[in-house]
Amino acid sequence: MKKSLLFTALLAAGITGSAWAQEPVNTEMNSRIREEGMNHSQVMDIAFHLTDVAGPRLAGSPGLKRAQDWAVNALKTWGMVGAKRESWGKFGKGWEVQKNYAAITVPYYHAIIAIPKAWTPGTNGPIKGEVMLIKADTTTDLAKYKGKLAGKIIIMDAPALPERQVGHADMSRYTDEQLAEMAKAKMAPAGQAPRRGGPGGNPFAAFARLRALRAALGEFLINEKAALVLSQARGTDGTVFTTNGASYADTAKAVSPELETSAEDYQRILRLVKAGQKVEMEADIKTEFFTKDLDGYDVVGEISGTDPKLKEQVVMIGGHLDSWHAGTGATDNAAGSAVMLEAMRILSRIGYHPKRTIRIALWSSEEQGLFGSRGYVKNHFGDPATMVLKPEQSKLSAYYNLDNGTGKIRGIYLQGDSAARDIFQAWIDPFKDLGATTVTISNTGGTDHQSFDAIGIPGFQFIQDGMDYNTRTHHSNQDTYDRLVEADLKQAATIVASFVYHTAERKDMIPRKALPTPRPAGAPGGR
Amino acid sequence: MKKSLLFTALLAAGITGSAWAQEPVNTEMNSRIREEGMNHSQVMDIAFHLTDVAGPRLAGSPGLKRAQDWAVNALKTWGMVGAKRESWGKFGKGWEVQKNYAAITVPYYHAIIAIPKAWTPGTNGPIKGEVMLIKADTTTDLAKYKGKLAGKIIIMDAPALPERQVGHADMSRYTDEQLAEMAKAKMAPAGQAPRRGGPGGNPFAAFARLRALRAALGEFLINEKAALVLSQARGTDGTVFTTNGASYADTAKAVSPELETSAEDYQRILRLVKAGQKVEMEADIKTEFFTKDLDGYDVVGEISGTDPKLKEQVVMIGGHLDSWHAGTGATDNAAGSAVMLEAMRILSRIGYHPKRTIRIALWSSEEQGLFGSRGYVKNHFGDPATMVLKPEQSKLSAYYNLDNGTGKIRGIYLQGDSAARDIFQAWIDPFKDLGATTVTISNTGGTDHQSFDAIGIPGFQFIQDGMDYNTRTHHSNQDTYDRLVEADLKQAATIVASFVYHTAERKDMIPRKALPTPRPAGAPGGR
Repeated sequence: MKKSLLFTALLAAGITGSAWAQEPVNTEMNSRIREEGMNHSQVMDIAFHLTDVAGPRLAGSPGLKRAQDWAVNALKTWGMVGAKRESWGKFGKGWEVQKNYAAITVPYYHAIIAIPKAWTPGTNGPIKGEVMLIKADTTTDLAKYKGKLAGKIIIMDAPALPERQVGHADMSRYTDEQLAEMAKAKMAPAGQAPRRGGPGGNPFAAFARLRALRAALGEFLINEKAALVLSQARGTDGTVFTTNGASYADTAKAVSPELETSAEDYQRILRLVKAGQKVEMEADIKTEFFTKDLDGYDVVGEISGTDPKLKEQVVMIGGHLDSWHAGTGATDNAAGSAVMLEAMRILSRIGYHPKRTIRIALWSSEEQGLFGSRGYVKNHFGDPATMVLKPEQSKLSAYYNLDNGTGKIRGIYLQGDSAARDIFQAWIDPFKDLGATTVTISNTGGTDHQSFDAIGIPGFQFIQDGMDYNTRTHHSNQDTYDRLVEADLKQAATIVASFVYHTAERKDMIPRKALPTPRPAGAPGGR
Repeated sequence: MKKSLLFTALLAAGITGSAWAQEPVNTEMNSRIREEGMNHSQVMDIAFHLTDVAGPRLAGSPGLKRAQDWAVNALKTWGMVGAKRESWGKFGKGWEVQKNYAAITVPYYHAIIAIPKAWTPGTNGPIKGEVMLIKADTTTDLAKYKGKLAGKIIIMDAPALPERQVGHADMSRYTDEQLAEMAKAKMAPAGQAPRRGGPGGNPFAAFARLRALRAALGEFLINEKAALVLSQARGTDGTVFTTNGASYADTAKAVSPELETSAEDYQRILRLVKAGQKVEMEADIKTEFFTKDLDGYDVVGEISGTDPKLKEQVVMIGGHLDSWHAGTGATDNAAGSAVMLEAMRILSRIGYHPKRTIRIALWSSEEQGLFGSRGYVKNHFGDPATMVLKPEQSKLSAYYNLDNGTGKIRGIYLQGDSAARDIFQAWIDPFKDLGATTVTISNTGGTDHQSFDAIGIPGFQFIQDGMDYNTRTHHSNQDTYDRLVEADLKQAATIVASFVYHTAERKDMIPRKALPTPRPAGAPGGR
């Protein structure tokens, strides 16, 4: 369905422009925002500094600190007030890779593509050892390996790569039909939030059983002094999706060094060992823990409100700045961070003095459980476990989040806040020509707007094209600057800036849903 | 178009079964071949030994020797006679990688995905150095770098990765429409052979200019004692397509160590350096040259003919066993080698005693210019430069080659030998249910059947589904066993065995084209 047909279909369904015609749109301001956002963008330069220059930005790592410092400085340079790193509470240990080398040496030499699992230790210098396959379905199966694993490199069985599917593309965008379906959606029952990231899914499930078994093995391998553990990564063709192999808690118990190994390299080793071929490897892994400051930090900065009656009220935008460690977290989520920074820059650059205060927050430890935004929300707005609110809670009009990769904005999830539908439809309508059309009542999960939604503050995530987020970049070693699509990031920053402008100028705050019921810590419904 | 529609279309076009009905097909023997090939296949085990166990099989390398020895032993085990390695002439130096490590260390640590270019030296131990961007369009531009490159790691400008295309799939098979087009093709004018590898093309061209410039730089970099050269590889997402960085000739002059670097890693370094960021790296590359035996070898073996009048005549099948060095050359061309070995095994296993002698040859140095097959042809059949023939030339009925990856057989290229059309159409017709249908007059180039075609012997390459050959595997670090599709290899071995059977039993040899005109060495029309 072409866009014109879609529009005709909407008209035919009785959804006409008049429904949201009363929500004012400032066309002149939109033009100024567009001019700055589309023709004088700095979003790629911002993204370059957050990715290539800062490096991987795992929570608590020096790379994240570099990116935070750069962002604070950028906000100050653009004239923001109160730009700073702000502790959201205690996180745990920082960690980074300082050497990463592993190779097969017998039956022939082959350097493998593998990434240390986050928060695992190194090998304490170069090691050499024979690969040993452990077959264990239960803890009692381990007895037969007692005394045999010292200095060995451990693997376990893992499924072979499925045959590549004819016509399967890494890259996708929403079709007009898919967007039309989303616009028509009814509210999903509670607890059935759609998965994040647009079309496609995260095939993590196949590894869950294996990971659980490995967890049981952990203590045994430590006691037996295994030299190194290999696990098979999700991904193909040298793309390695990464995870953590140990807790970041300062009290975390010891684990073995562990390499998330490209599926092809892992399967080669596995096939050889299963066939009775001797495989030897060498490795040299060095990782460093940082325990001097266990706090987690967000970056914040503001454009002060100027209306005497409204300047105490706030519009917030944000995204998480932390990433996984194998790439430079370009699409997850330097993209969203860069877009939000650029939106602030645009609004500042055009000389806009908002009625309400505009605040950006770049979260940390999102990847470990939305900790940066949850901590911030708890510190400023209230505790979702008790629903005891702080005064600031009543003054935040809305929070807008971006964290679904490099894809342009195609619309916005209402997160069930039906009273906002006509407002957002009016605001997004001027960006039809840029591909943004859709307001859906649906929830989307998995990122920081949920922390706001949980305390009764309107929190929204934009709909973004899926691109290669689930197939290649999300948490992988291939999440690098190369995957950022300049035209899409410019579009997103322009639309975000416009939404922020209209939220800051609006007569009233964004209408709210009913306050949620208290959700004690540990209850379902979180990330 | 569905197969039934295609068939209807062919009937409508007046091409009916009667055109090739007179060429006999042995249905009972086809059944026995199918039973062994489809239900008792050993093709995956053969491929496992040629890839995982032998390792990379660069011409002249120990890995190729391991695979050759395994193949000779397998042929003997299956009862072939005369199984051996046979020298085709002088090749040059063997070479293999014995250590491969490189990483960015400043502004932060990141191990890169990179492969030493074939026949380049190592770093002579661990090195550390700063990355320096050389901008030079001509040799005279180099003067400004004189005295500044000692111990440096050299990069040059290279194009950024293009945006991934929505809907672009790595994996493809021929559609019925494409096959119907191929069947209808007229003979292409001489010198316009279609590209190898099925749908898609090899985008090597973009790098040609860069490579030419690098060649001019070579001597300068050696004289200036640059520590290491990085070049940007074709490929994305950790997939690295490899080439050679120096000659294999025993008289080749010295070059600098050079790493073909994944595009993402290369571009990251390039972006940083161009932005004025200091980048330092460490590397430890060890490569070994083998000069004890400079000869190149093919593997040969036979099932002896039993018909007193025909046993001096020969049917040959083959494919090249050598590969590039980054992966294990699974689709290029362990696949074809395994299929040909399996075809020999099938014919032997079913107790078939052919009228004509059946010979397999697994070539080497195909990747450097079809040298293994050209040398064999020159030794046995004649010299295409003079067209002076040897007696064996008149006794070889046909040569069948397989070297277009793991995709199943969809038909056969006649290579202009129109007199063979009805024969092959009759022989392929029984395999319609397995997806093999098409006989095309067209040429296909780039592999060893050309060596036979060049001396007037009917030489054929099968049409194979393109799969992910051009997108992921062909010459890349991802050309591993994982990419082999068992069902396709079984199908191919079954069809090849049937073709060989029918060629060996046929009343006459396969009809020939006119003898080519002599083609002096260095003349166009080769690979």
